[in-house]
Amino acid sequence: MAKIAVLGAGSWGTALAIVLADNGHDVRLWAHRQDHAETMKETKENEKYLKGVQLPENIFITHKLEDSLEGIDYLLLAVPTKAVRDVCQTMKKNLTTKVPIIHAAKGIEPETFKRVSEIIEEELPEELYRSIVVLSGPSHAEEVGLRQPTTVTVSSRTLEVAEEVQEIFINKQFRVYTSPDLVGVELGGSLKNIIALGAGISDGLGYGDNAKAALITRGLAEVARLGTSMGANPLTFSGLTGIGDLIVTCTSSHSRNWRAGYKLGKGEPLQKVLDDMGMVVEGVRTTKAAYQLAEEHGIDMPITSGIYHILFDNENPREIVEQLMTRVRRHEMEDLVNILDQKMKD
Amino acid sequence: MAKIAVLGAGSWGTALAIVLADNGHDVRLWAHRQDHAETMKETKENEKYLKGVQLPENIFITHKLEDSLEGIDYLLLAVPTKAVRDVCQTMKKNLTTKVPIIHAAKGIEPETFKRVSEIIEEELPEELYRSIVVLSGPSHAEEVGLRQPTTVTVSSRTLEVAEEVQEIFINKQFRVYTSPDLVGVELGGSLKNIIALGAGISDGLGYGDNAKAALITRGLAEVARLGTSMGANPLTFSGLTGIGDLIVTCTSSHSRNWRAGYKLGKGEPLQKVLDDMGMVVEGVRTTKAAYQLAEEHGIDMPITSGIYHILFDNENPREIVEQLMTRVRRHEMEDLVNILDQKMKD
Repeated sequence: MAKIAVLGAGSWGTALAIVLADNGHDVRLWAHRQDHAETMKETKENEKYLKGVQLPENIFITHKLEDSLEGIDYLLLAVPTKAVRDVCQTMKKNLTTKVPIIHAAKGIEPETFKRVSEIIEEELPEELYRSIVVLSGPSHAEEVGLRQPTTVTVSSRTLEVAEEVQEIFINKQFRVYTSPDLVGVELGGSLKNIIALGAGISDGLGYGDNAKAALITRGLAEVARLGTSMGANPLTFSGLTGIGDLIVTCTSSHSRNWRAGYKLGKGEPLQKVLDDMGMVVEGVRTTKAAYQLAEEHGIDMPITSGIYHILFDNENPREIVEQLMTRVRRHEMEDLVNILDQKMKD
Repeated sequence: MAKIAVLGAGSWGTALAIVLADNGHDVRLWAHRQDHAETMKETKENEKYLKGVQLPENIFITHKLEDSLEGIDYLLLAVPTKAVRDVCQTMKKNLTTKVPIIHAAKGIEPETFKRVSEIIEEELPEELYRSIVVLSGPSHAEEVGLRQPTTVTVSSRTLEVAEEVQEIFINKQFRVYTSPDLVGVELGGSLKNIIALGAGISDGLGYGDNAKAALITRGLAEVARLGTSMGANPLTFSGLTGIGDLIVTCTSSHSRNWRAGYKLGKGEPLQKVLDDMGMVVEGVRTTKAAYQLAEEHGIDMPITSGIYHILFDNENPREIVEQLMTRVRRHEMEDLVNILDQKMKD
């Protein structure tokens, strides 16, 4: 039994806290807002973000960071990418033990193009933690809360720490695998949100499953191309944290990125979509980061670039999707062959 | 304008005949049964297999093979895999011009393990045709009939012929790409039906999107492993005829393979499911072929093998899926790394 702090009481942080509590660990769930923490304590439920699931007794809820961090063995960071720097700054002075930091955020920072593990490395002095582990995969929080079968992947530069983390999370319904490709696991989960926005836009415009499948397939190829140029193993994009997460995000109305895209496809302006969602849509900022990166490195990303123009330049979704469908390209394997060629050279 | 015979008036043959007719070609659609041909002529619709779509005037409908084949420039074979040998035998004496044969069947023959192009090669003397082309990709016939945007891939041993075929099919909504990997394109479309059965079984059992995404991801890895051992380029499984087709088949109730799996998951016996469908479920015979192949070559295919046991040994779907979820394996990349290693050696 380990003592584990879970920072962030959104849907995903809460669902992961429940997995850890089911496994008998002593879990400290930290919520950013005091009223949210208090309501959860009273109702024994996270009504706002994970309705209908009772919180186990061994989850201690608090809004005081210092209380959640005291004497812990592991720390799980489950806040939006945008909040990672702030939370790291705040917890700096409260980290009394040197523990592995697990993060479950799926984003890339615009301007800096940093992955979440890189942001953590920048914000926390190395002597304060024992290794960074990413946890990612095809996993709607709602289903994890209901103990439906789910698979995820953990990755770290230190395999032993990844295996420790695998051990604390794994149970009969929640299957945890390890991967040596930290960069690929972080990028797969982040970049797939761009394609989920696109899939939602296509559905919102009233296109069918054939169009969406084409968009997802081409989108994955383009995301893998960017990811590979950022140091990921291209094969990781064929795994749970790549295709797997992409499928679950693009084909389910649980997904907030898909839902945001759907509303955009229906013609709603971005700001209204975001205001109405009430949750962070990671794909929006990640699209900006990926677009900037692709521009900077001269990488051809027509889908990402089309979505960027819909989001930030107010371009017409229907025209963009039609352009994507009728692009002049005749041989299917161009992208894929390029990726393999690249890999062979490495 | 070309004269093109379309053999097979199921949903897919009819939808492709409509694409060709939209492009101004002179299309001869052959239906196996006289009453089916006559009803289509009268109603100007294929009510049985593609309801609600008017057949263009330039589709000539017949049940006489000799009438459909006379003086043609191209031949499109759109019959179930099981019927390919028979149709080839029958048309042997009516092929008066040496034309490319395009096929759109997605199956592998049990016992012989032949792909459809190999079956055609066995049944027709080489001097009777000009090259074999496969057409495959993520494409529900219903959406193609409604002129919804769709992408497919054509492949042939002769690139020029593939490009000719691309030319006759391509239009604004129906995008056609070429691929040099005939084996991979044929296998992707066929083997994905096994996984679609599995996805349907998982949904029928009441598992969620997380479980289904894991099953699809692992399924694709295992299918790519088998396909690679049969001579396919593993990267083709990341393209439209691999992942693309898999996504469209696993996530839409249009798909008959998914639907058959769903009913199996609900506990219906195989024979009843097949009787009720009234259409060929290619995945059933393909599962048998893939299982036999994997056994023969010692290839590890846990998902295919599980589905085989549900289909043919009456094993309990819930127990099989639970076994698959809790399999002892700790590192995600095992399969993928093996595939790349294999490719690097080639």
